[in-house]
Amino acid sequence: MTALSPVLDRLDKSLDQSLARLFDLLKIKSISTDPAFSADCRKAAEWLVADLKTIGFDAAVRDTPGHPMVVAHHDGPAGAPHVLFYGHYDVQPVDPLNLWHDDPFDPKIKETEPGRKVITGRGSADDKGQLMTFVEACRAWKAEHGSLPCRVTILFEGEEESGSPSLKPFLDANAKELKADFALVCDTGMWDETTPAITTTLRGLVGEEITVKAANRDLHSGEYGGAAANPIRILARILADIHDETGRVTIPGFYDGVEETPSQVLKSWEQLGETTETFLGPIGLSVPSGEKGRSVLELVWARPTAEFNGITGGYTGKGFKTVIAAEASAKVSFRLVHKQNPDKIRAAFRKFVEERLPADCSVEFHPHGGSPAIQLSYESPFLTKAKDALSDEWPKPAVMIGSGGSIPVVGDFQTFLGMESLLVGFGLSDDRIHSPNEKYEMSSFHKGQRSWARILDALTR
Amino acid sequence: MTALSPVLDRLDKSLDQSLARLFDLLKIKSISTDPAFSADCRKAAEWLVADLKTIGFDAAVRDTPGHPMVVAHHDGPAGAPHVLFYGHYDVQPVDPLNLWHDDPFDPKIKETEPGRKVITGRGSADDKGQLMTFVEACRAWKAEHGSLPCRVTILFEGEEESGSPSLKPFLDANAKELKADFALVCDTGMWDETTPAITTTLRGLVGEEITVKAANRDLHSGEYGGAAANPIRILARILADIHDETGRVTIPGFYDGVEETPSQVLKSWEQLGETTETFLGPIGLSVPSGEKGRSVLELVWARPTAEFNGITGGYTGKGFKTVIAAEASAKVSFRLVHKQNPDKIRAAFRKFVEERLPADCSVEFHPHGGSPAIQLSYESPFLTKAKDALSDEWPKPAVMIGSGGSIPVVGDFQTFLGMESLLVGFGLSDDRIHSPNEKYEMSSFHKGQRSWARILDALTR
Repeated sequence: MTALSPVLDRLDKSLDQSLARLFDLLKIKSISTDPAFSADCRKAAEWLVADLKTIGFDAAVRDTPGHPMVVAHHDGPAGAPHVLFYGHYDVQPVDPLNLWHDDPFDPKIKETEPGRKVITGRGSADDKGQLMTFVEACRAWKAEHGSLPCRVTILFEGEEESGSPSLKPFLDANAKELKADFALVCDTGMWDETTPAITTTLRGLVGEEITVKAANRDLHSGEYGGAAANPIRILARILADIHDETGRVTIPGFYDGVEETPSQVLKSWEQLGETTETFLGPIGLSVPSGEKGRSVLELVWARPTAEFNGITGGYTGKGFKTVIAAEASAKVSFRLVHKQNPDKIRAAFRKFVEERLPADCSVEFHPHGGSPAIQLSYESPFLTKAKDALSDEWPKPAVMIGSGGSIPVVGDFQTFLGMESLLVGFGLSDDRIHSPNEKYEMSSFHKGQRSWARILDALTR
Repeated sequence: MTALSPVLDRLDKSLDQSLARLFDLLKIKSISTDPAFSADCRKAAEWLVADLKTIGFDAAVRDTPGHPMVVAHHDGPAGAPHVLFYGHYDVQPVDPLNLWHDDPFDPKIKETEPGRKVITGRGSADDKGQLMTFVEACRAWKAEHGSLPCRVTILFEGEEESGSPSLKPFLDANAKELKADFALVCDTGMWDETTPAITTTLRGLVGEEITVKAANRDLHSGEYGGAAANPIRILARILADIHDETGRVTIPGFYDGVEETPSQVLKSWEQLGETTETFLGPIGLSVPSGEKGRSVLELVWARPTAEFNGITGGYTGKGFKTVIAAEASAKVSFRLVHKQNPDKIRAAFRKFVEERLPADCSVEFHPHGGSPAIQLSYESPFLTKAKDALSDEWPKPAVMIGSGGSIPVVGDFQTFLGMESLLVGFGLSDDRIHSPNEKYEMSSFHKGQRSWARILDALTR
């Protein structure tokens, strides 16, 4: 631990400076899904490149057809592993803005209870705060030792929240440059405030936007109601048909490739102590909405879903308008597990929708990304080393968990770089990522930096 | 016809001036449903009062808890009937604005084909253009004869497009002042471009806004999808349940009070020559959406409906957001016929919704107006006189038709003033009322003025 100790000390002493840097990054409105914020996305990439250069990385903004990538390289000692660190600098939209207690792009430190501080703002947890934990660990290591313990390549993406359209082509075109021994991906969470976690199971994702079109213009519901097709009615019927009474998805072929989770894995999840009450209670719910007879952890980690992420049609302003709209649309996503095939799911969904359309109506589909589920290998020696390093830093030993969310980059690293990923992150379930009032625990930010220092050290042994 | 002829001549000669007045009124953005336009609504009322005073009416803006009424009085000869003319100066919202070819509040005259002109703009047909046909007829009559042939009271409302919340109390409080022999209501249409119509059957309306609430905040669909209730899914299921496979509404008790239309009435409607193809073809549709086995005219004139006028929930912007929304809402309306009871329909709908809610979700209801259907008497002598007068003006004889839309004021005149209404209007089915690119035919505006002059004359005989 001779190399590690001074790095940990330095991270403790430089916390204020590391916070100032994070705040600079959080102030940049890098919302990738909305074209109005394209310049902000580029600004975030440029900020990161400038910062990485101060540490001694060979860093550059790399253009793509969408938002740019950040790629940075730093040498390591001969014989030490070469890691590719991945994070994303783009963030989710902030609407509805009126529900935020503070400006989402003016981060603050708040004391939520005595001795517990959080960092507020969009991106604080997802993923700017997380990626900076690694950057800060590298900075401190370099400052102490003039070098890094491993060879490090960094890849920061700017389209993670909008389906990563440029990622696959970029990995394909730059495979030789980006290939490492394995990837470190920092976009996941801890089990709880005191228990670090390594995520070994990830659901995949298929996103689809559908627009049902009926009449060639908006109609008066008095004049035409009862005779003219109403696209909201058609859309509601289609969406309602997707689940049966037991919560199962009814799209033919949807469960092809879904496996039952081994009983010993289910048992280890049971031991985590999560119940329907502990999981749903904090968000004000009590009845699991998914397939009956399965625990909430199984539902979110190991079962596929169909969710409706947005719907709009007709008059949605204040008051009332007796209109029959010409069209209505919905954003639909599917979480995938095991060997479900994203392309087949998308095709089956489209067929399902088309079969339910009246003869004189039409539908338009717009795809929003697709990725299979990931099951990481429990046998990797890097996994064991990282687990031990995390257990050294935190009050409780690290656990291996599943994740309900997709991190498509993990599949892409496998496909394009032939490389496994180690998923370590410091988010908490109440961080409100993708929601108003996103925050990141001060302990996540501080001990996250220390955790990476420990992991980098452990990987060299 | 000695009194009538010079009035008709004057209306022909003063068409340009009458258009200039209409344009002034159309430029006022009197959207009643949106509080942002309250001042514009008042401005429209003030404009009308000023104009009516120039004709010699005793006119005033009359405050209500909502948008003001316009009430105006003009004496008539002893022994002549006393009529109450009704119209509304408020208009529908204009969204989606990008679909308008011209500014909705900058009216224009356009030649749509050689010899056929239209007046464009929000409110041109519904209802500013219509109400001004009557005002212009009065103006010309007064200018020619220094008097009006009947005693005329005018009532212009400013909340017709937003459920008329102030109308009933206003009629109740001012019943003595407003009571006349019968009402002339100008908010309906012709059968076609050359065939005038008197509307004798009107559907009622119940409007409801429902908001389904699930979790206490927006959720990440990866983190919670499969476990947490999704309000869009719940709402879609509720809406989908409202119609069965044959197009019938499934809400228990919904058809209480609905009568079958007499066969001779159905036969007279058949003779109008309207078919599924002629009715739905122009709006790009071919399959009636309502109850099977009934003609399109029966569906829109004599059958009740449930329509979804708006729906919103979750992320509806560009791109994709993997969110499970905390709530989703829909605007739902029911068109009523015969003796259906609005209060019972509203209560039955609310029960229907509540029965379909998961135990941990809630719903909020917000009512938007309610009125029963109207069936006007075929025996009124005023009806015969007006029918003959219209037949004199237009190329083809006047017909008696139904209307799918509600005109709640007709029921309110019955209830509060004990007075029947004669519904005469000059709109056409392609006027795009409530839609982008609303227009009013120049022939409707011009011959509409002449029609009212003829009707006023006929009523005195």
